Formats: sequence, structure tokens, C-alpha cells
Amino acid sequence: MEQQSRLAGTVRPGGRTARTRAAVLEATQDELVECGFHGLNMDRVAAKAGVGKTTVYRRWGDPAGLVTDLMAELAESSAPHADTGGIEGDLLANALNVLGAVTDPRLGATFQAVIAAATGNEAAAAALNDFYLRRIRAWAPVVDRAVARGELPEGTDGMEVIRAVSAPLYYRLLVTREPVDEKVAEHAAARALAGARAGAFT
Amino acid sequence: MEQQSRLAGTVRPGGRTARTRAAVLEATQDELVECGFHGLNMDRVAAKAGVGKTTVYRRWGDPAGLVTDLMAELAESSAPHADTGGIEGDLLANALNVLGAVTDPRLGATFQAVIAAATGNEAAAAALNDFYLRRIRAWAPVVDRAVARGELPEGTDGMEVIRAVSAPLYYRLLVTREPVDEKVAEHAAARALAGARAGAFT
Repeated sequence: MEQQSRLAGTVRPGGRTARTRAAVLEATQDELVECGFHGLNMDRVAAKAGVGKTTVYRRWGDPAGLVTDLMAELAESSAPHADTGGIEGDLLANALNVLGAVTDPRLGATFQAVIAAATGNEAAAAALNDFYLRRIRAWAPVVDRAVARGELPEGTDGMEVIRAVSAPLYYRLLVTREPVDEKVAEHAAARALAGARAGAFT
Repeated sequence: MEQQSRLAGTVRPGGRTARTRAAVLEATQDELVECGFHGLNMDRVAAKAGVGKTTVYRRWGDPAGLVTDLMAELAESSAPHADTGGIEGDLLANALNVLGAVTDPRLGATFQAVIAAATGNEAAAAALNDFYLRRIRAWAPVVDRAVARGELPEGTDGMEVIRAVSAPLYYRLLVTREPVDEKVAEHAAARALAGARAGAFT
């Protein structure tokens, strides 16, 4: 899902607090990418961000708190959905955006680290759930518009169609550990669309 | 994917070596379920299995070696694909089998632990890839038979249809962290089938 790979440029301008948060989240993402969730160390994040340890502990509490805030910021800084004028183009854009995110070295490693952490950590799981539902909700309107244009059957479930576009990419990425590329993304979009046209998502 | 939740009863009868392997893999699965991959400890596995440490280190090398062998055994002991006489029933059986496996407390936790480990461990990733490709290959013939019966278009890619049935379940389970239940499984099977009937998997 499209967002900047680096947070620094995307965090909204603000005062000292906003700059502290930006530095801490940037350092959190660095650590996640390099060491994974199990290696995420509050003291090292503070040092890397140039922020006092006390501030980091007081504001974020624990590594899961850092990850939760990072995911919220990533959701916030994600671009809105595409509007190509047709459902085929919109779903392809969605699939390519997911592909871009998961194959981006920094962003992809971030997602994988949080997904791995979620197996043993409820807060990480909640952060994931929040992030992905926000992204699914952000894209569902492309399906609603397609229904309004008569491209898809009445009652097609937009969130389910968007989930169906992402699912095959993540399945290969995380479960079968097979490569994901543009062909995989195109297939995912085309197959979700075929199912939707056939009324399987109503 | 259907297999016994506990290995003990399914490991092929054999001599002392086979019994040692069964005990060690059973203990490995216990540890994975309780502590995750990061908590998998060779000495504790040996103690739990009642087997000498030296044997465990010599034969399996490291925790990843244990997980690789466990996944091979789970693949081996999985039941073959369904044969309900029609593609609709076969794909539904596949979806319900995946559902049964991922929601089984012991088996589901095992998969999640190995999936989480695969993010930072190449050997765990290879073990996953091997396990799931074996399961996908085991089920693909239900699609080939459907093509032969004229239920699906010529050239439909059986492995891709089987992947498409699993993907939405794992996506919810691992990525969006949403519940998976029979309804989700039924939808996954019906939507893959609708796409396949529409020729989106050729």
C-alpha cells in the first residue's frame, strides 16, 4: 500500500514534540528492519533518535507501544486510493501498491517484522489489525464506485474485494515463501475482479 | 490442511531411531507451541523427549533443523486430497481442511510459530516453502479432474486455484488478524471457484 518508505519527510510539521516523535519512529523502523521485533531495544531507539530514554519510556512504554505508533503513522501517511475511472485499473493499482509496499526493502521488512511479532504479542496484533483495516477501508470505495457505475453487481462487498486482491500476495510472501512480482499482482487483481463480476462477493 | 494434531500416533512404526525421531519431533512441537521459535531450546527438547543431547545436536544440528524435520513429518502425515465428485465440494473440503488446521490449537500455533520464524530464518522459510508446496501439489489434482470433467476451462492452473482457496484464510489470520471461521472458508472456496469458472486461472 503506497506510502513513503522513509517516514522523515512525511511526518506533519510541528513543534518539538512532533520532531521527537518523528525521530523516535524513524529509529524504531530502523531497528525493526535490522533486528526484528525481538531485537527492538528501547534504549537503542532513544540513542539513535537522540532523545532521552525517559521520554521514550514515558511516552511509548514498551517496544509494542513503539510499533503501535509506527503503524499508526504509516497508515496516516499512506496515499489515498487510486481513481483510474474503471474497476479494472483501480484494482490493478491496488495490487501494484501492495506489491510496491511489500517489496520495498524498508517497508516490506517493517511489515514482516510486525507480522512475525503479532504471533506472540497482542499489541502488535492489534496494531496490524488497525493498520490493514484502515488501508482496506481506504480502498473499498473503488468497489462502491464500480457498483454505482454498473461495473459490478449490486451489493458487492468492497472490503472483501480489496482483501481478495491483497491475500494472494501476502500468502506467497509469508506462507509459501514464493516470489511476488508484477505477474502475481496482476493475477490477484484480475481474479478478484472475475469473482466480483460473477457475483461471488455479494 | 488435514493431519493429526498430535504426531505421536501418526509416525510410521519403526525401530529405535524412528521412536527417537517421533519423541524429538513431538517435543519440538510442544516447545514451538509454548515458546515460539525464539524460545525453542535444543537441551529442553532433548530432556522432554528423553533423548541424549548429543543425539539431538548431532542429528538435527540447530532449532531450524528441528523445525525443518517437523514440517517434513507434518507434510508426510497429512491426508490426501478430497474426492467429493465435484469441484465445488472438493474446494470446500480444501478450505475446511485449511480452516481446521489453522484453528487447531496445537497445529495452528505450530504453523504460526514457523511462519513468524521464517521472517528472520532462511531454513525455517525453506521448510515452510517445502511444506506448503507439497500440500498445494497434493490438492491440485482436484482441479485437473474438474477440467477433465468439463467443470472448469481447459488450462486452469490447479496449483493457483488451490493457493487462491488458502490465501484469504491466511491473510486474515496473519495479516489483518481478523477471525477465520466456516463462513470465511466457504467464501474463499466459492470465490476461487467463481474466478476459475470465469477463466481467470488459465
